[in-house]
Amino acid sequence: MKNEIKVAVDAMGGDYAPTEIIKGVVEFTKKNDVKVVLIGKSDLIYSQLDNYKYSQNKIEIMDATEVISNDDLPTEAIKHKKQSSMVVGLNMLKGKKVDAFISAGNTGALVAGATLIVGRIKGVMRPALAPVLPTLKGFALLIDCGANVDAKPIYLKQFAEMGSIYVKNIIGISEPKIGLVNIGTEEKKGNELVREAYKLIKDSDINFIGNLEARNIFRGEVDVIVCDAFVGNIILKHTEGLVKDMFDLIRKELTSSLLSKIGALFAIGAFKNIKKRFDYKEYGGAPLLGLENLVMKVHGNSKSGDINAALNQCVKFIENDITNEIAEKMREMKEI
Amino acid sequence: MKNEIKVAVDAMGGDYAPTEIIKGVVEFTKKNDVKVVLIGKSDLIYSQLDNYKYSQNKIEIMDATEVISNDDLPTEAIKHKKQSSMVVGLNMLKGKKVDAFISAGNTGALVAGATLIVGRIKGVMRPALAPVLPTLKGFALLIDCGANVDAKPIYLKQFAEMGSIYVKNIIGISEPKIGLVNIGTEEKKGNELVREAYKLIKDSDINFIGNLEARNIFRGEVDVIVCDAFVGNIILKHTEGLVKDMFDLIRKELTSSLLSKIGALFAIGAFKNIKKRFDYKEYGGAPLLGLENLVMKVHGNSKSGDINAALNQCVKFIENDITNEIAEKMREMKEI
Repeated sequence: MKNEIKVAVDAMGGDYAPTEIIKGVVEFTKKNDVKVVLIGKSDLIYSQLDNYKYSQNKIEIMDATEVISNDDLPTEAIKHKKQSSMVVGLNMLKGKKVDAFISAGNTGALVAGATLIVGRIKGVMRPALAPVLPTLKGFALLIDCGANVDAKPIYLKQFAEMGSIYVKNIIGISEPKIGLVNIGTEEKKGNELVREAYKLIKDSDINFIGNLEARNIFRGEVDVIVCDAFVGNIILKHTEGLVKDMFDLIRKELTSSLLSKIGALFAIGAFKNIKKRFDYKEYGGAPLLGLENLVMKVHGNSKSGDINAALNQCVKFIENDITNEIAEKMREMKEI
Repeated sequence: MKNEIKVAVDAMGGDYAPTEIIKGVVEFTKKNDVKVVLIGKSDLIYSQLDNYKYSQNKIEIMDATEVISNDDLPTEAIKHKKQSSMVVGLNMLKGKKVDAFISAGNTGALVAGATLIVGRIKGVMRPALAPVLPTLKGFALLIDCGANVDAKPIYLKQFAEMGSIYVKNIIGISEPKIGLVNIGTEEKKGNELVREAYKLIKDSDINFIGNLEARNIFRGEVDVIVCDAFVGNIILKHTEGLVKDMFDLIRKELTSSLLSKIGALFAIGAFKNIKKRFDYKEYGGAPLLGLENLVMKVHGNSKSGDINAALNQCVKFIENDITNEIAEKMREMKEI
């Protein structure tokens, strides 16, 4: 276990930056013996920190004059906004000045920047962004939702390995079940990519349960859902959109008549339970797996509690030395 | 307009075959001057028909001794079960003995069989299965959900053209809006397939509104959702699964306490409205577009009303001569 952990946080990324980001960091440092570096416009950060009592030797401030917005083109932003909180943070991580970097900012820019600046673990062909999807039984890791839209079978196999290591260590499931997203359960189903990936994953020592049909994604039959980033993004965004729109529809219908309004009043507790279940942020941030050091994406609309949760998740990641375990796995693979 | 329309129906396919299929056909023929051929085990069909008053010159029976089940491998089943209701029906269609064929049976077998037996319209590279997805504004055609899991950009362009023609004629939307499923709205987003398809569709005379992000699929922003069959199947099945599981979850929560039970009682009408909105069968069957003659897939759990609706849809398809309009479009394309 590392003696002193230090995590950098992008104070400027996300819908509620910097207020909620800073609030989350203050909350976290009160309960944890971990240092946090807040990166962003320092005058803004200092003025916000004035609202709290906080331990000055746990929170550092690193000035960054620029901000990457959601409208910025990812690669362009990384190349040209060298003084942005995101690029400054990724460079600190690369230089080993911190152990992890958290951002709620532009996802595309974060993935591109992390790959370009931080660098991959030897043997990892593509880093993968792995958010958590809510399921009927709890949740599952969805890997990849990053930038590898033209994937190769070997990438999917590595995603399965990295996802397995992550879930085992962070969630504590000793033998995570891995499923490959496909349009049928039989081995020969699907396109060339998944047919080849199926063979590779089957021949590995992963606890592979085979193809996972989309109708069962929400059922919670597997702990790790493997797919290329195009499919992963479709699943993630479609789920988010459909769930949000369905709740809007339910709200609209329930307020459409006096009878249903009365019903809604009685059933409000039940609805809150269901809604909580679909709250992505309940499950923390999405790690970018396969990098030399940890980069974690948190949802754009994260509030202080989510930042706090992501910081705890980073600590667990570092204490369990997951980067090293992935590196070990890659070495093993090379030897075979 | 054709003078006498004749539609063949697979009496043996689907969860409620043959009872509900036959019931639907009887209902339909009572109100329409269209002939229907029921294909399947004739003794079974005759014994079921005995339960109804029906016009014998509107309903014919064609004996087929075999049945293709959902467990059969598609191509194998088509090759080996020559006496199945599905293969007999497709051969009748090929021989122009009927104008359309409807089946609630094994989707893979139907798509494979239709492509092998019925044949494509000249110029159509791949036929596409186009079911309807419910949306906040009504519904949208999702094309392709068939068997083209390794698609090429030109296929997607043709799907956009065929989907546009279908929606214009069958739904009556004069200029259907076409969207391409992608992971971002910008032209350069996505994998090689969609980037190339984007260019082809943009340069055509289709009412192309650009890329459609998955989070907006349910919003109803477009009338035709274009994607390859792998992605289409994921979207279709994920939507079905998630909606079903969410309703199960809501039911469970609403019956978990006395308070919520009371609430549910008052709000029951509101829930029925929402559920109806998500009932796929409300929107009829899924045509297989691009074939020389119409093959229509109806949901496996179709009941008599759904069969009735699908028969009406077939009549509209034939009366509007959609096959010919697609053929015209393909000739135009060739001339350019």
